[in-house]
Amino acid sequence: MKYKDYSPDDLYTELYTVRQEFDEIKGQGLNLNMARGVPSKDQLELTMPMLDILKGDTECFAEDGTDCRNYGVLDGIPECKRMMADMLGVKPEMVMVGGSSSLNMMFDTISCFMSHSIVPGMPAWGLIPDRKFLCPVPGYDRHFGVTEYFGFNMIPVPMDENGPVMDVVEELVKDPCVKGMWCVPKYSNPSGISYSDDVIRRIAALQPAAKDFRLMWDNAYCIHDLTEDHDEILNIFEECEKTGNIDMPITFGSTSKITFPGSGVAAMAASENNMKVIMNKYKYQTIGYDKLNMLRHVRFFGDYNGMLEHMKKHAAVLAPRFDIVTSKLDENLSETGIVRFNRPKGGYFVSVDVMNGTAKRVVELCREAGVILTGAGATYPYHEDPRDSNIRIAPSFQTLENLSKAMDVFCVCAKLAALEKLTS
Amino acid sequence: MKYKDYSPDDLYTELYTVRQEFDEIKGQGLNLNMARGVPSKDQLELTMPMLDILKGDTECFAEDGTDCRNYGVLDGIPECKRMMADMLGVKPEMVMVGGSSSLNMMFDTISCFMSHSIVPGMPAWGLIPDRKFLCPVPGYDRHFGVTEYFGFNMIPVPMDENGPVMDVVEELVKDPCVKGMWCVPKYSNPSGISYSDDVIRRIAALQPAAKDFRLMWDNAYCIHDLTEDHDEILNIFEECEKTGNIDMPITFGSTSKITFPGSGVAAMAASENNMKVIMNKYKYQTIGYDKLNMLRHVRFFGDYNGMLEHMKKHAAVLAPRFDIVTSKLDENLSETGIVRFNRPKGGYFVSVDVMNGTAKRVVELCREAGVILTGAGATYPYHEDPRDSNIRIAPSFQTLENLSKAMDVFCVCAKLAALEKLTS
Repeated sequence: MKYKDYSPDDLYTELYTVRQEFDEIKGQGLNLNMARGVPSKDQLELTMPMLDILKGDTECFAEDGTDCRNYGVLDGIPECKRMMADMLGVKPEMVMVGGSSSLNMMFDTISCFMSHSIVPGMPAWGLIPDRKFLCPVPGYDRHFGVTEYFGFNMIPVPMDENGPVMDVVEELVKDPCVKGMWCVPKYSNPSGISYSDDVIRRIAALQPAAKDFRLMWDNAYCIHDLTEDHDEILNIFEECEKTGNIDMPITFGSTSKITFPGSGVAAMAASENNMKVIMNKYKYQTIGYDKLNMLRHVRFFGDYNGMLEHMKKHAAVLAPRFDIVTSKLDENLSETGIVRFNRPKGGYFVSVDVMNGTAKRVVELCREAGVILTGAGATYPYHEDPRDSNIRIAPSFQTLENLSKAMDVFCVCAKLAALEKLTS
Repeated sequence: MKYKDYSPDDLYTELYTVRQEFDEIKGQGLNLNMARGVPSKDQLELTMPMLDILKGDTECFAEDGTDCRNYGVLDGIPECKRMMADMLGVKPEMVMVGGSSSLNMMFDTISCFMSHSIVPGMPAWGLIPDRKFLCPVPGYDRHFGVTEYFGFNMIPVPMDENGPVMDVVEELVKDPCVKGMWCVPKYSNPSGISYSDDVIRRIAALQPAAKDFRLMWDNAYCIHDLTEDHDEILNIFEECEKTGNIDMPITFGSTSKITFPGSGVAAMAASENNMKVIMNKYKYQTIGYDKLNMLRHVRFFGDYNGMLEHMKKHAAVLAPRFDIVTSKLDENLSETGIVRFNRPKGGYFVSVDVMNGTAKRVVELCREAGVILTGAGATYPYHEDPRDSNIRIAPSFQTLENLSKAMDVFCVCAKLAALEKLTS
């Protein structure tokens, strides 16, 4: 029976039982972190051979003869540009290989547009006091952090199982102060949904009032499938080519969750017009990024197909973890009717909507019981989840055993918070 | 006899002779690049053992237990912070270890101050239409590039053998629109001079009208000595502590010219107030920089003393190259009286002042003869050398044999350009 159909007496009885369970669990003194999408040790082991793959000095040269140990090459060595281009679904000449962090490249891109105009004759974003950015919710807290840092008024856009609700987006872009939209088109962080073909076509067909409206197309999980039967999304550049909107998307990706987080290779790609503005920044910003690390990656994978093969090994580690999360939720909470959650075919998160008005309390209770979750509200701009219901669960980092324990804690806490609310 | 004392007839005779020399040299079909301060292959070899120093997974942990293969640690692993702090002459807690490029960190710092105020209540630099920056000349073209990109009005400040002429600096900082000054205090790029104690004390004692005036203290060559008898400069932080100006300096450095250019470790340091503003940017910008590369560096050097030992090997490669440059200049040009140049005890450049009004022509002639130099004027803001006399020579990259050839070309071209001018 669902909690909402319980009699008041039954609710109190259940509250008593669940509170006992909670006290027991708290007594275990757990200390488990599920706050962020951090690969597990088992995943890191997969990339160990890359670490010392460059040895002798003859191995340090790129295919065009560039000595990767020395200065130069602003946009990355050709073989790495090619591999990252294949990953991002673009032509190599559109690609800039940056440091190790695609977040850093996104930050730099927004920063660039803050001080320099993208479309000749239009003011830089920093000169628009009422600048706005569309933020599909729930979304990635670090995305929202960047636009918050740069003083954008962030407008939440609801998501459904197909992506951002396009009726809303199409209305909002009529405002010339709306300068862009954050998108994680595949296995969206945290909801795990992938944008439908229809949504991507409608995005590509947008006619924003701002000629310098840009899609921050963070394809973070482009090859991060968990199962053979995985999502496929349309290529945003191909769709925007058809609609004459080729300057709208800027795409980002990295190997952070493919090789070593923090020591991977990040890349971005965009149209010629956009890259002209962006490269005009990079040429002042640096002489070039770590080419030895680019070379390490290319030597380790061979090419894009090698990356895909490698991702299967990650899937083998990750899939059981996702299974634990969803089966624990099924097992412990489906009857109560207090949670809704996704069953993603890839990505790094399970997004759980607990009973309205209890997300903060669930996170607090979990913390008391030694399980650290992403802060409630983090998936919304300004950390304001209007329903206080969304919680992002990151299954990757813990061992299967600990994850199982952590999910037991989560389920008890979700129940307890709901019961507290229903009986208050 | 000096050219200026030649009779007109003698000048024409000399012109004829030198032009013949030039034609001969041109016929050799040389192709030698001395444009930038790029380490030679011999120097890159010195660091080869670092490349595969991390092997097994047990070797990937920092001293505090951090798994360097995974996400996290925004400001760098402790042992790397300590090593870079020692190099920069600051306390570890003042240090942020960034990516591989100190130029990138300088760009990011200026970019940060463009959009966010440094001193509470004062406007961000981007909101000051008439913002200005002091540029000691000759200076580093990439510094000037950054402030040009961000729309600063760059004011050249003359340098003498002691550093920037402080009477001029003290006058200029009375303008509240003057927001900072570029400094390469040791073995200045390109002049090779080190700031005297008196200059550094006067810098530390500045009372700029702008409370958010900042020194971009690029200590790029802090341990890049060529000889046992090397320059020592005062510690800017210690001096600024004494004068109550601790928020004025921000210092930068990297291992680009110590290990591998482009794949080194870069760091910055500043006061608590400054780092608060800067870290509030970094926390949105990235999750953290490449910790494996930090660990590689620490394992390779052990500590700062290991870096100093390593720098002696660089000096052994570099010193003979600098000797060739200065002895060729002595040998071929001292009699003519047309050049002035420094004899640096460290750094990467020999700065040559050819006859006024001939630098562009010398660079052009060298190019015709197959020797590529940094563009004339590059060492001045907006590439405008008012006397058209300064040329930066970078001796590091070429072999001794080729460097010798290139310097012969340079000397002939310097003479030819001077004679062309004197006879025109």
